[in-house]
Amino acid sequence: MHNISNPRLQPPAEIDQSLSEIDTPALIVDLNAFERNLKTMANMVKEAHVTLRPHSKTHKSPWIGHKQKEYGAVGICCQKISEAEIMVAGGIEDILVSNQVVGAAKLDRLAVLNRDARVMVCVDHIDAIPEISTAAARQGISIDTLVEIEVGGSRCGVTPGKNALKLAQAIQDDPHLNFTGLQAYHGSAQHLRDHTDRQTAIEKAIQKTADTLQLMTANGLECEIIGGAGTGTFEMEAASGIYTELQAGSYIFMDADYAKNQCAHGRPFDTFEHALFIYASVMSKPDENRVVVDAGHKATSIDSGYPLPWHLSGSEITGMSDEHTVIDITRVNKKPTRGDKILLVPSHCDPTVNLHDWYIGVRGLQTDTAHVEHIWPVSARGALF
Amino acid sequence: MHNISNPRLQPPAEIDQSLSEIDTPALIVDLNAFERNLKTMANMVKEAHVTLRPHSKTHKSPWIGHKQKEYGAVGICCQKISEAEIMVAGGIEDILVSNQVVGAAKLDRLAVLNRDARVMVCVDHIDAIPEISTAAARQGISIDTLVEIEVGGSRCGVTPGKNALKLAQAIQDDPHLNFTGLQAYHGSAQHLRDHTDRQTAIEKAIQKTADTLQLMTANGLECEIIGGAGTGTFEMEAASGIYTELQAGSYIFMDADYAKNQCAHGRPFDTFEHALFIYASVMSKPDENRVVVDAGHKATSIDSGYPLPWHLSGSEITGMSDEHTVIDITRVNKKPTRGDKILLVPSHCDPTVNLHDWYIGVRGLQTDTAHVEHIWPVSARGALF
Repeated sequence: MHNISNPRLQPPAEIDQSLSEIDTPALIVDLNAFERNLKTMANMVKEAHVTLRPHSKTHKSPWIGHKQKEYGAVGICCQKISEAEIMVAGGIEDILVSNQVVGAAKLDRLAVLNRDARVMVCVDHIDAIPEISTAAARQGISIDTLVEIEVGGSRCGVTPGKNALKLAQAIQDDPHLNFTGLQAYHGSAQHLRDHTDRQTAIEKAIQKTADTLQLMTANGLECEIIGGAGTGTFEMEAASGIYTELQAGSYIFMDADYAKNQCAHGRPFDTFEHALFIYASVMSKPDENRVVVDAGHKATSIDSGYPLPWHLSGSEITGMSDEHTVIDITRVNKKPTRGDKILLVPSHCDPTVNLHDWYIGVRGLQTDTAHVEHIWPVSARGALF
Repeated sequence: MHNISNPRLQPPAEIDQSLSEIDTPALIVDLNAFERNLKTMANMVKEAHVTLRPHSKTHKSPWIGHKQKEYGAVGICCQKISEAEIMVAGGIEDILVSNQVVGAAKLDRLAVLNRDARVMVCVDHIDAIPEISTAAARQGISIDTLVEIEVGGSRCGVTPGKNALKLAQAIQDDPHLNFTGLQAYHGSAQHLRDHTDRQTAIEKAIQKTADTLQLMTANGLECEIIGGAGTGTFEMEAASGIYTELQAGSYIFMDADYAKNQCAHGRPFDTFEHALFIYASVMSKPDENRVVVDAGHKATSIDSGYPLPWHLSGSEITGMSDEHTVIDITRVNKKPTRGDKILLVPSHCDPTVNLHDWYIGVRGLQTDTAHVEHIWPVSARGALF
């Protein structure tokens, strides 16, 4: 490896700075809204008599994981072994890798983690079972293993019913694995805008899961966990009587894409508040009706569309490149000018968070006394494998 | 700041490993193709009697910057002060920040850098001039400053002609700034698919630049640098007799989006070879005709569409989420199976590179003896501000 330094980037803010002193682009957490979101979800899962295992792929922060546990979460989900390594290093001891893991190198790391914590994993193929078992045996531990069933997302997962049963039995029969339940997440249903469409999709998922659960029970297989659900549908899974653990992640930040969902009777989805923002400076104002801000593709993801300029009614993003976003302000009353700083609500929180090294936690964001109260590292940023 | 460790992520490979031993997802550089691209560009700019100041926003690596200098580049471009800091720390001494910089905090850092290196900057507004001057005065240095003119991209830049002249004169009159030339980059022209469309756009840009240059000269202002051009149009600016420095960046990697450009008479744009890949594993094969690989939005950007599965003729990406890509392989002859590793050509190299901490440099990628020869940090990954 060539010896050029790779310095850890410094945060764009200091504790106690006022909002306007924060350098840009920065990833801002509205602490007040964030805490209200945590509390709202805690109350909702308590009332529904289910547990919450929030997905840390959203936040990639052990600090936030611990905060979620303070609010009653039983543990967290991860999507990657490298994420789980950082979460275990941060003291989180109950993790579900809600995903398939292939390759001996990764499975050995999964097994090593199980010496320090409970780190569960999913399988959707019979060949995965001896692979995981071998890694577990090498470490002299056992691994809690779930069967992922395909409930409508057309991504991973074995077909529900008999094929899932075969996998569960093979896990149960393996000396180094413990059959722990079903992973039944319907990802693509989360962002269906219409409430009835989401309900129809999730009712089908619940039925497939219920049928598979019944088959397991009839064959003497106990499911400790029936897991799934995201921020768009969790109330439906919570009310199912089937799902035991909800895996929502985005609820803590509530991005602009989820805000486009509609609740029953066309009501807005305002259960949670926007708590995550990109702070950006107007770096150029080439004419009266166009500003260019200093945050582009490298600061905010666009897989779910452009971010939403906040409190800038009438504005329209007309273009984005790697380090620039062009905003048309023709119809904006109070037009920002060169040097002004604005907030953008990310369209999709998870890949946006993954672009940043630091959360800048601001107290009283919507007030005159907005100031930096916390600076948290995005510890698992870039944890890809 | 809460005291949870933020470990530097380890690379997904070791030196001398074979290709198939590299863990996934990984950012792979085909060293042979990369070196040929460097050489091709070096020859082309030499023949055109212009100089090359390649854009490091593509690669974010001082190591690659030095490699470009070995091949004749006069220096590099950066887009952000934090990028320039990392490049100067890596020993690059001639940098153009091809962008506006606002705010005293950033301008102070720009001035500090100028104690160790030549770090030029662009302006497109009269108010920027005293701001930069103040920062320069505080450090007791002078800063080489270019006027950015808007030549068709509708992003930043002052209008060409008289308005540009006013800025240049104000720079020239400032005791701490040196007027150094014009920044005249037409970003949106780079990706016009049709050669004639690109030519029409760039001819207009050249005309605006030439007119502004003439005005400068007539007013006794010397332009050391007339800079601009990207990988899609650099031959046109090179042949203009006006531009002195080309700022192409993507040529070293040649992404899938640039490969969609057509040259004259509809010929393919094959001047450069694909040299950057995402290596991914098949983590799930739910049925014969669908594989899911372990690289999603967090491993490859989609602002320019999906990546291109390499040597997987007939395949089609049907969906991507944060950590998954679903590929339909119905029409693929040699169907990959669970555990297989495949290569994807990123659609847009710059924001894809920015998602990774390490380049894995592979020698002989297209041969049976493909192996890891270099592991370079993506040193300025995440350098946002």
